[in-house]
Order: sequence, then structure tokens, then C-alpha cells
Amino acid sequence: MPHAIINDLASRYTAKRYDPTRKISAADLAVIYQALQLSPSSINSQPWKFIVVSSDEAKARLHDTFASQFQFNQPHAKAASQTILFAYNPYYTRTHYGAVVDQQISDGRASPAERDQQFGAFGFVDLNTDENGYNGNWTKAQTYLALGNLMHVLARLGIDSTPMEGVDKTRIGELFAPELNGYVCEVALAIGYHHPDEDYNASLPKSRLPIEQVVSVI
Amino acid sequence: MPHAIINDLASRYTAKRYDPTRKISAADLAVIYQALQLSPSSINSQPWKFIVVSSDEAKARLHDTFASQFQFNQPHAKAASQTILFAYNPYYTRTHYGAVVDQQISDGRASPAERDQQFGAFGFVDLNTDENGYNGNWTKAQTYLALGNLMHVLARLGIDSTPMEGVDKTRIGELFAPELNGYVCEVALAIGYHHPDEDYNASLPKSRLPIEQVVSVI
Repeated sequence: MPHAIINDLASRYTAKRYDPTRKISAADLAVIYQALQLSPSSINSQPWKFIVVSSDEAKARLHDTFASQFQFNQPHAKAASQTILFAYNPYYTRTHYGAVVDQQISDGRASPAERDQQFGAFGFVDLNTDENGYNGNWTKAQTYLALGNLMHVLARLGIDSTPMEGVDKTRIGELFAPELNGYVCEVALAIGYHHPDEDYNASLPKSRLPIEQVVSVI
Repeated sequence: MPHAIINDLASRYTAKRYDPTRKISAADLAVIYQALQLSPSSINSQPWKFIVVSSDEAKARLHDTFASQFQFNQPHAKAASQTILFAYNPYYTRTHYGAVVDQQISDGRASPAERDQQFGAFGFVDLNTDENGYNGNWTKAQTYLALGNLMHVLARLGIDSTPMEGVDKTRIGELFAPELNGYVCEVALAIGYHHPDEDYNASLPKSRLPIEQVVSVI
């Protein structure tokens, strides 16, 4: 019998149609939100916002962002239980990291006297920042850590999901400007329960490259 | 009592010293390798190689890559049970995706007659490729999905880990050139069991920004 972890990973897949009548329970949503908060990130930077599109009003806005691109993902906006926008800070600064450091002091990881020393880790940000202060490639990569973590969480919870790079980042930037506050969303995750009849992907076999092509033990 | 998922995520942390006498079991390694293979990626592209540094010879090579940078991570090279190099393909092409498509056909996700149609998804690669054919920002982000997934797997297995952006990608590129074969490693994950006395991070509290600052439900 395969390991429980492999069972979870082998059974998850990308849902292609959602059952609009099924919603994720409040208890599971609480786990999902806390798992997002607990996601690891480089130097604990947490350079992200997770915007959970849940109300009819927000779903209608998300639906409208698919007006001109990636229309195959548009149905998920209204039919999925929620869609989570994974947004990154394209200009992560010492001020942003200062909030992390102060939280670490408040949580007892360092004393107030060690505050300056805690900024040593910020060197990793400098290494990934260009002359205009842009470090969006680095902060975006961190959101993929959170996404990989959350997709595993959802598999454990038996909740279906659809990772979508097929989102119109410009339209999302416009229609969700108040919530994004300068952050950028280029990937989103629809979550919910797949449609019992209309999800062609539910019954297709999983496919991966042979393990010896991707994993080398040396 | 917290949910098992939250327990796992709250108990994982970045190990800062490994117990060199403790090795990961073959059974757990098999789960780890299969979990890497099963990691999700955009359009199932799998634009990665996971190189598991396991032998004394390979560990000595990895140790040497820390000669001039990030020496605080150097001890892990020899003391951790293994270190996994997460490497991405900086020039992912239709040929690479063709191998994925052929695997999908072989696994029964599509018929041979549908081969051309399967390349429709390749548009996502084009969107992320510059005029020189470089798409390393996109393929690198996919490796962070795999990393986020694997860090969750390790938490479930009770195995400690250390994600390291603090690796010398140039030296790794040189010393692991035969294994990388043109792929690029900018992040690695040491795995094993923390040192019982010398891991200062084992007893420090976890710290995260307040949930209302990172998760907005709208």
C-alpha cells in the first residue's frame, strides 16, 4: 500500500470544472488561512498578500478580469468555492523587513538589543534587487513556495484546486487595486469541489516524467 | 487541539545544525523522491532536476562550493543526511515539452492523434520567454512549488530541513556541471535530523506576521 503522503499527492490534480453548489467548510477554511500564514519564505520575508475571493461581489470582479484573456479559467471565478490571489511585493524594502524583525522580537526570537543584527539576513534581498529597487522575481518565487505548500494542504483536506498562471495580471491589478495596494498577482488558486460530471480531468490518469529523469542520487 | 496540518506546519523550522550520526531511512527517502516526482508544475512542464547529494564524494564537492560565500551553510553539506539541489532549466523549449507530451500520451492522458493539440499549453512558456529564449524566472518559480511541496512532506515525516538560497550558484554550476547539464541551481534543501545540542533554532519560537496582514477575505 502506498504511503499516505504519496496517496495524497497522486490523487490531487487540476480541477477543470467546479460544482457551484459545494462550499468549503469554515473549519477547513481556517486551516487553509493558517497554513498560508505559516508558509515558509526566504529569511522569513513573507513578501506576500493572499486575497481570498469569496463574496459574490468579489467573484463577479474576478470573473470580469477574464474578459479578454484566459477565458478557459473564467468559470472557476464564480463556480469555485473561493479563489486565492497570490500577490507578491515587487519592491520589498528594509521597511517591509523591519515589520518582520519587530514581529520576531515580539514573538521572542530575538531581543530588542539584537534588532540591528537581525537585518543581516537582508543581504539576500539586496542580492536579488536591481538598480531600480525591483526584486519581484525573488518575491514572486516565494509565493510559489506558499502555493506548493497550500496545494499539499488541500490534497490532505480532500479539497480540489486549480492553480492558474492563466490570469490577466493587468486586469487583476486594476480591478483589485484597493486590495493589492501595489502588490502584483500573476498566479491564483481556485479551490472547492469538482463538478461530478463536467470535469474531464477528474478521471484522466496522472502523468509525470520517469523518476530517473528528474531525481539523480549522487 | 490544533489540526494535524497546523501541527506539522507549526513544528517545522529551519535547522541550523545537523546531527551527523543520523541518516534518513531508505523508506523515507523513497517517499521524498516520489514526492519530488509528483510535484505539480505549470502545464505539467517539470522543468527541473533534483540532484540528491548523498555520497561522501558528492558531499565533499558540495562542501567545496561554499569556499567563498555563504559559509554559514557549509557545515550542512557534510552533516546533513542529504542535500537536494533544486535546479531549473533556464531555456525550456518545445523539445523539452515534447517529452512531457509524449509521456502524457504514453500514460493515457491523450491519444497520439491529439499530440499537436497538447502543445496549446506551451503558450504559457512563450509568455514567459524573452527574445533570447530565456525563461529561467518562470522555470525557477516552478522549482519553488516543488520546494514548498517537499518542505510540507518533510514536516509530515518528522524530518528536519534547511532551505538555502545561500548557495554559490557559480561554484555549484562548475563543480556539479556533469549532473546539472546546463540546468541552474540557486536553491538547495539540506535534510536530516537536527543536532541535539548545537541547533540554536530548534528551541526558538516560530514567528509570522499577523494573519490579518497577509490573508484578506473579500
